[in-house]
Amino acid sequence: MRFTSETPSDGIREQLFTLGEIPGVLWTPQGAAGTRPLILMGHGGGQHKKDPDILGRARRFVTECGFAVVSVDVPGHGDRPTDKEYDRIATENQARAEAGAEPAPLIAGFQALVARRTVPEWRAVLDAVQQCANVGAGPVGYWGLSLGCGLGVPFVAEEPRVRAAVLGLGGALATAEAAARIAVPVEFLLQWDDERVPRVQGLALFDAFASAEKTLHANPGGHQEVPAFELDSTLRFFTRHLG
Amino acid sequence: MRFTSETPSDGIREQLFTLGEIPGVLWTPQGAAGTRPLILMGHGGGQHKKDPDILGRARRFVTECGFAVVSVDVPGHGDRPTDKEYDRIATENQARAEAGAEPAPLIAGFQALVARRTVPEWRAVLDAVQQCANVGAGPVGYWGLSLGCGLGVPFVAEEPRVRAAVLGLGGALATAEAAARIAVPVEFLLQWDDERVPRVQGLALFDAFASAEKTLHANPGGHQEVPAFELDSTLRFFTRHLG
Repeated sequence: MRFTSETPSDGIREQLFTLGEIPGVLWTPQGAAGTRPLILMGHGGGQHKKDPDILGRARRFVTECGFAVVSVDVPGHGDRPTDKEYDRIATENQARAEAGAEPAPLIAGFQALVARRTVPEWRAVLDAVQQCANVGAGPVGYWGLSLGCGLGVPFVAEEPRVRAAVLGLGGALATAEAAARIAVPVEFLLQWDDERVPRVQGLALFDAFASAEKTLHANPGGHQEVPAFELDSTLRFFTRHLG
Repeated sequence: MRFTSETPSDGIREQLFTLGEIPGVLWTPQGAAGTRPLILMGHGGGQHKKDPDILGRARRFVTECGFAVVSVDVPGHGDRPTDKEYDRIATENQARAEAGAEPAPLIAGFQALVARRTVPEWRAVLDAVQQCANVGAGPVGYWGLSLGCGLGVPFVAEEPRVRAAVLGLGGALATAEAAARIAVPVEFLLQWDDERVPRVQGLALFDAFASAEKTLHANPGGHQEVPAFELDSTLRFFTRHLG
């Protein structure tokens, strides 16, 4: 793990790093020392590790909860090189969707393929980040919607350090089997009028989690319209389970 | 409206009253004067106006939010005389259910019958309670689960003073038409393994609300197992919309 830059801003210490070929960013409370809860955030499709969606939430996890937050670019996203195989599949999928195929199974199949790379990558990121003196081996939470859910479900299923997860905007097609191996508390966000994930698929994924404590929060609107008040709920959820 | 007793306890002023034949209770912050938000709470089937389910929540609305809370006995419940027609229908329904009939449509039909009495009763209660100097004509919220949802949906649909409602543990069978006339923010609680309300009926009721802001909170467990952390969410919901 190699830190490449460090910027303090508004009480937050931001450290860019690379771990092998993975570019990432670690946020911690400025001047913080010692072990603290760590949230790994998985960005959405077409986004990157410092997308405004990620940054706004990370800022609140750090400043209001005192957590550490780590976010890395998914293969083919952000500062990572384009991936020829992924590009070929994406182009094929787009052609199939334009020819009338259901997009949900195509998206699910693609996410399952990418997850075979990101699960071991993210576990290695946890190993490295927990070596930092201002992070340590505290409890870990996972946050990810959409692509971050499709990649997050298999990650949370495999990684025993994760104690609580906020997931959502994903369906059961690719991930129901992994979801059935998740037993930690889950807060699951579903958009009632999601144009990308059929409602029944989202409900089926919520149903599949083996967790004794799981909460479905469903709100009207499309894939990109999760209401702002859900972030308040996310903060309370992680504070309850990691704090 | 006639007040029959008054008890202060732990910062809460409790006033029992009767309005015509309706026995009720009003809780306000001790020593409070002036207009404040008012929550009308509808109790569950077989419960009464001071059921522990009601009392515990009312206490937090008053002490943490400074709201007034009013709760009255539904016909045939609490301090009200038994109702021969209701008893006859309840006995018939029980016999039908034992003979293999689906209970959900029977419960829905019964609640629709009772609502024809409780909607005007509850509107009269609002009229009377808002005359009190320590309540006034502030914004009104409604809270009710199970029977309190079956009676609450038609009430909220009819009563323009209600600005926000927490409802749940109810299905669409009796109330979908009224739900489609509700446009205020709704937080809707659904128990994923509800043995009385089929999941699809609960989801259909959530779907039926016309509200631009509505949130479904679904949790594992049976009809009586709403998790305690949902009350925290209820407090925040009412504070956001009435506070």
